[in-house]
Amino acid sequence: MSAIDELATELARLPGIGKKTALRLIYHLLRQPPSQSRRLAETLIALGERVRPCAQCFNLTEEELCAICRDPRRDATVICVVEESSDIGAIERAGEFRGVYHVLGGRLSPLDGVQPDDLTVEHLAERTRRGGVREVILATNPSLEGEATALYVQRQLAGQAMVVTRIARGIPVGGDLEYADGVTIAQALTARRAM
Amino acid sequence: MSAIDELATELARLPGIGKKTALRLIYHLLRQPPSQSRRLAETLIALGERVRPCAQCFNLTEEELCAICRDPRRDATVICVVEESSDIGAIERAGEFRGVYHVLGGRLSPLDGVQPDDLTVEHLAERTRRGGVREVILATNPSLEGEATALYVQRQLAGQAMVVTRIARGIPVGGDLEYADGVTIAQALTARRAM
Repeated sequence: MSAIDELATELARLPGIGKKTALRLIYHLLRQPPSQSRRLAETLIALGERVRPCAQCFNLTEEELCAICRDPRRDATVICVVEESSDIGAIERAGEFRGVYHVLGGRLSPLDGVQPDDLTVEHLAERTRRGGVREVILATNPSLEGEATALYVQRQLAGQAMVVTRIARGIPVGGDLEYADGVTIAQALTARRAM
Repeated sequence: MSAIDELATELARLPGIGKKTALRLIYHLLRQPPSQSRRLAETLIALGERVRPCAQCFNLTEEELCAICRDPRRDATVICVVEESSDIGAIERAGEFRGVYHVLGGRLSPLDGVQPDDLTVEHLAERTRRGGVREVILATNPSLEGEATALYVQRQLAGQAMVVTRIARGIPVGGDLEYADGVTIAQALTARRAM
């Protein structure tokens, strides 16, 4: 196989990149100075070597503890539980949450072979058992699997002295009732609040 | 800078990949076995080391001559001139052309600093001067720069004993007159042929 085909095959393994996009990227790289491909290759290797899960929350980090767990200004009594590290970025960008996180590493999905043991639920339970936690916010996605995962986590934490909450589902800000699906509208109505 | 940020910066240099897509790709890679990132890095390095321009037509190849120039079944008396190696793939997929190619390496674009000397026009003129060429088909893109490039190449080849042709512009097959732009419709009318 030619070098172009080999790279195209590797690139096409990435989500959202088909064979055609892969070739477009390769032709672009071939028009650039070779240093660009080399830098890309080096940073790829560095990624695998330097990045690892935070010993406390499983967020991705290059240290023993991630930047959020190390930050003394974060409120360690509130833990926001998310499926993936990438979800932390989305919540941090919102700038609303000042607590800490726990990354499950996925969501329960028997069809894809993701069992409770594949997630970091037991680590979370141990972490909260050590005490000092007021609230655990379950911020898994509002999908079927995300809901099932939230329910499972909630049960595993049952009996511990803290509040377990679930993020609100409803019409997204800037969204349009007319185009919202029925389940979301039903959730938005059920979770209505006094003004 | 963290390994994730470094890789995101490198990935975001690629066309069509923004910071957000770059992060999505990185989180995907981090969920895969490290061997995937390593293979991607290795094929990237191989690309720069193994791929080079064909000594005759400037198509990308890993040999002295590209697969098309080496193929004795191709008609070397007809040369199709394209802007980029990637254009060859598009024409080959059409399965219509049995001649050989010449890659200019871009198109004239004074605004982007692309001058005649940056293209392989002089190599093409030398190649045709050696004789044995019946026809040169100018298949640069039907854009302003592509047309200017075609005109420039035609002038550089003037006086040589061969036909210089230009690919037809018109309504694309499966296209819709209603949505075609005026310039294309005008071209399609001017280039009309007896049935």
